[in-house]
Amino acid sequence: MSNQERSEERWCCSPVTAEPLSAEQAADLSAVFKALGDPVRLRLLSLIAAHAGGEACVCDLSGAFDLSGPTISHHLKVLREAGAITGERRGTWVYYRVLPETLQRLSAVLGPAPAVSTSA
Amino acid sequence: MSNQERSEERWCCSPVTAEPLSAEQAADLSAVFKALGDPVRLRLLSLIAAHAGGEACVCDLSGAFDLSGPTISHHLKVLREAGAITGERRGTWVYYRVLPETLQRLSAVLGPAPAVSTSA
Repeated sequence: MSNQERSEERWCCSPVTAEPLSAEQAADLSAVFKALGDPVRLRLLSLIAAHAGGEACVCDLSGAFDLSGPTISHHLKVLREAGAITGERRGTWVYYRVLPETLQRLSAVLGPAPAVSTSA
Repeated sequence: MSNQERSEERWCCSPVTAEPLSAEQAADLSAVFKALGDPVRLRLLSLIAAHAGGEACVCDLSGAFDLSGPTISHHLKVLREAGAITGERRGTWVYYRVLPETLQRLSAVLGPAPAVSTSA
């Protein structure tokens, strides 16, 4: 499923400490967690996110790994298909950026329940 | 690796948008993301987290799934080994709770970089 096909309603979510996820929400979110469930992919995500200007090409990333270019490209494809990063070709290279809304949703789901106002 | 064996230094982390993860940090964190990268496990986590009193036994959880008890127990074991939940036997049942520090760490890693003060 592409990002575009995810309805906002399904793909929302309140923190898990506040209310249980529906089966559909869990299916959507777990697909992104699965993409992050690999040390190379998680490091790639962090290298892209923290790179100058918030974007990086394979040329910026491959030096950090003892892996072939095609292997790194495969991991980037998995992150892209999960909606964690996006890529834009400019000249020779594809430049990758994280999709902050995806990371923020995951962060919010795992975060503490928002404080409830107790004022009358 | 158990939670106890994780050093705080490795298992910290700043948001990925602030600085890249080390290989060791990525290995630790990706193991937890991998455990959450399954729709049944993510739903189990959310059902436990949102259950009355913050804890639930298999008897509270199995009704939400069309899965056998042993299958649910397997998924709970994966979550437990990843440090996402803890379990305590009381009488007939094991009662599970989420480990909020684990979820908070994951949430912080995916969250936005903290605002930097620009005052002189």
